[in-house]
Amino acid sequence: MSTNLEARSTAFRAYVKKLSSYNQAIAVLHWDKATQAPRKGMEARSEVIGTLAGEQFKLATSKEMEEFLETLSEPAALEALDEVTRHTVLECKKEYDRNKQIPAATYQEYVVLTSQAETIWEEAREKDDFSLFQPYLEKIVDFQLAFIDYWGHDGKNKYNTLLDLYEPGMTVDQLDPIFTTLREKTVKLVAAIAESPNKPDTSSLKRHFPVAEQEAFSRFVLERIGYDFQAGRMDRSAHPFCTSFNPGDVRITTRYDANEFNTALFGSIHEAGHAMYEQNINPRLLFTPLCDGTSMGIHESQSRFWENMIGRSLPFWNGLYSDLQKAFPAQFDGVSVDGFYRAINEVTPSFIRIEADELTYNLHIMIRYEIEKGLINGTLKVADLPTIWNERMQEYLGVTPPTNALGVLQDIHWSGGSFGYFPTYSLGNVYAAQFAHVMEQQISGYHDLIAKGDFAPIREWLKTNIHQYGKMKSPQELVQAITGEGTNATYLMDYLEKKFSAIYQL
Amino acid sequence: MSTNLEARSTAFRAYVKKLSSYNQAIAVLHWDKATQAPRKGMEARSEVIGTLAGEQFKLATSKEMEEFLETLSEPAALEALDEVTRHTVLECKKEYDRNKQIPAATYQEYVVLTSQAETIWEEAREKDDFSLFQPYLEKIVDFQLAFIDYWGHDGKNKYNTLLDLYEPGMTVDQLDPIFTTLREKTVKLVAAIAESPNKPDTSSLKRHFPVAEQEAFSRFVLERIGYDFQAGRMDRSAHPFCTSFNPGDVRITTRYDANEFNTALFGSIHEAGHAMYEQNINPRLLFTPLCDGTSMGIHESQSRFWENMIGRSLPFWNGLYSDLQKAFPAQFDGVSVDGFYRAINEVTPSFIRIEADELTYNLHIMIRYEIEKGLINGTLKVADLPTIWNERMQEYLGVTPPTNALGVLQDIHWSGGSFGYFPTYSLGNVYAAQFAHVMEQQISGYHDLIAKGDFAPIREWLKTNIHQYGKMKSPQELVQAITGEGTNATYLMDYLEKKFSAIYQL
Repeated sequence: MSTNLEARSTAFRAYVKKLSSYNQAIAVLHWDKATQAPRKGMEARSEVIGTLAGEQFKLATSKEMEEFLETLSEPAALEALDEVTRHTVLECKKEYDRNKQIPAATYQEYVVLTSQAETIWEEAREKDDFSLFQPYLEKIVDFQLAFIDYWGHDGKNKYNTLLDLYEPGMTVDQLDPIFTTLREKTVKLVAAIAESPNKPDTSSLKRHFPVAEQEAFSRFVLERIGYDFQAGRMDRSAHPFCTSFNPGDVRITTRYDANEFNTALFGSIHEAGHAMYEQNINPRLLFTPLCDGTSMGIHESQSRFWENMIGRSLPFWNGLYSDLQKAFPAQFDGVSVDGFYRAINEVTPSFIRIEADELTYNLHIMIRYEIEKGLINGTLKVADLPTIWNERMQEYLGVTPPTNALGVLQDIHWSGGSFGYFPTYSLGNVYAAQFAHVMEQQISGYHDLIAKGDFAPIREWLKTNIHQYGKMKSPQELVQAITGEGTNATYLMDYLEKKFSAIYQL
Repeated sequence: MSTNLEARSTAFRAYVKKLSSYNQAIAVLHWDKATQAPRKGMEARSEVIGTLAGEQFKLATSKEMEEFLETLSEPAALEALDEVTRHTVLECKKEYDRNKQIPAATYQEYVVLTSQAETIWEEAREKDDFSLFQPYLEKIVDFQLAFIDYWGHDGKNKYNTLLDLYEPGMTVDQLDPIFTTLREKTVKLVAAIAESPNKPDTSSLKRHFPVAEQEAFSRFVLERIGYDFQAGRMDRSAHPFCTSFNPGDVRITTRYDANEFNTALFGSIHEAGHAMYEQNINPRLLFTPLCDGTSMGIHESQSRFWENMIGRSLPFWNGLYSDLQKAFPAQFDGVSVDGFYRAINEVTPSFIRIEADELTYNLHIMIRYEIEKGLINGTLKVADLPTIWNERMQEYLGVTPPTNALGVLQDIHWSGGSFGYFPTYSLGNVYAAQFAHVMEQQISGYHDLIAKGDFAPIREWLKTNIHQYGKMKSPQELVQAITGEGTNATYLMDYLEKKFSAIYQL
């Protein structure tokens, strides 16, 4: 490497480190606001976050950044750089181009619009009045189309440009067949389950569970599966989330319902799944944009794997049920481990996505995916959404939401302009099943280890094959390297059919 | 005001707001590091704090700041500005000049030195070996002298320049007579107490106090005195502190000793005294450097007033003792309120400043004050410190530390270059007594209110006369306006003599 290039590369890494420091600081300020900050300090806090975010944006789109990227992204330079710096350049360039391609005034207008839209969405949901939200959503869709024009698209499907924001490389051509299989098979399975006379008894899950005891049990389970409390912490917040400042400080939050068992425990395991990904990223990626999950879908594969494929599995509870009964003797008195396992896996078509069970969850995603594609490709109008929504709910899940608040208005995503995000939730399930299938083959005694509570080999496998890379490998590269094939929903459907056929004795 | 000046003033306020946002963010990162952050994330966190502090320093010393200050600190401009902006300009200018007068290379060298010195000081204290620390302390003193040369001094006493860093306007000429009176009278009083046969029984304070119950009782007391938990929170840390992000978010920390009652409760009240100052600063000062206590001495007057003059007073416990006995029935069984009051006010000459009682505390400060003056004015050498220290301890307190660890090496301040800071601790006591004297006259039924637990009139008085101003008034202006005179130790000595004569029946 030439001396000049080396100097530029070093200066670039220092610049990126500064940028990353801003991101980490802003994340701490957000976490503190959501979990710790007193009410009266919120307003000033928001202003501080806004100011630092503005400074961060300036750094990411500065003339200095432009000059770094011009020099370092030349093919000869890229080739000469070490791999971390090379990937960092490419990641920064992607971000820089995205930011620069949109005129500042347009983006400013969009920020104001989505900020207003979130408030209006809340009101519309509260009043169950879609017409309030409709004009905002129409404008937001128009902005998405404008952004696609600025960013360009692959000529096949405009929606691909949005998918790429959350799942780099993912396309409608790949997703359509995957999701069609998933949807058709799931609809059949849900119908069969509805007709099964062998319903689980879920009454034990709706008893009184003191919050402090739930928290203690969640901690116990998280320690068992290997979330590192020396590199994180668990707090309470209105909406559960995971936030990573650096691999040595990845925090999760949980919410508790004293009259419902599933929310806190499975929510904690879900967030711990996200967190263990971030905790195990190679430390050499610290202070670069690569120190993050490679995509929303791969991230979700980790949370779903731990929440459902481990946390809602029979071997897991075979190993843990006596601890659960010790923690909540009255609540689970007379409930067998099998009865408990069936209860936490109850399948019930319902209106609200975030409360959906493991099986019907994907059908909620299918509806949003189809609507998003339709809006972006012009085959659907915003005004049609309530009707389409309810028709699809009836078609896929066999239920029709009685209100738009329980239907098309339930999720915040669109009000914030997040189009292309929803599919990653189901992709996470698809990936998780593919990975679990390989783990079963590669980790000897896989199910026994789960029953014994020995998760070290599984964690090691995930770290080696997925976590350590951060954004150094694309989602496709990971899936291909691990499974020897592309994204494939067959494994998820096989897993779901096997699991739920047994539970419902189909 | 000219349009141009108005534009400059507005731009300056925006610039200062950004600077303040950095300060607030850094304070949050520090608080989180001290109270919440997991062990493995500490190293990266320190780097993030360092980076943001560097950016903050750049903003405070930038060409842009220089230009603002040049324009806005011209006499005609200053006169035309509103009072908040005027004081902000003066405050920023003071800071800017201090930073700019020291050559960057010199300051960098100093930062490295003090960073090393803190580590060496820890080691020296651990090994009880002053000679390890001596060369570092000598260099640190040389730097203080160099700084005084850069900053200039008033021609009367070089030490005044350092005093001004922590207590703007305070001088040796003012302090010497105040501290001499205080010292001479205190030494006499301590000697008389030593000879008194009427010693309090402190055994009840050394029983077992479960930490959770101590915490609950501290919260109860803090709510009673009026620390606003909607604008703050109380956490645990190794060293108690108070940190203000904005008046709506002023947090305190406490440490607990399960086998000692005083530490946590009086520590909490002390920090809450600091915090109530910050919580009651006028919100119009938010996002300016004026949104802070006006000096270390005035700040300490607030913590000491609540800790000692309220928290260790008989009326206070007359009102609260039944609650205390309810919280700790076994521990205070058979202890009368008078016995408890005498116990928490026990006077014992001891080696460690931070563990000293209300009376002997000031003697610890006198020793440090005299040593600092001697070092800065060249009448004392660093090598002489262990000897001088022990001689003065014997002379003032009647005890000689058996080791330097329990003597000259006990405090961290000098290793970090904090010279001129110690006197503000005793000044806080002096101010507090002056303020309390005026309150007794101006607040009707002052002692009854304390006994009733009705602290609203006292808080209101403090807010009106002190808190609201932040840095808008200098310490001298505050003291003069409130008391009609200057700093005067008579009130403190009268208070101490009256209080301890009664307790020890002198």
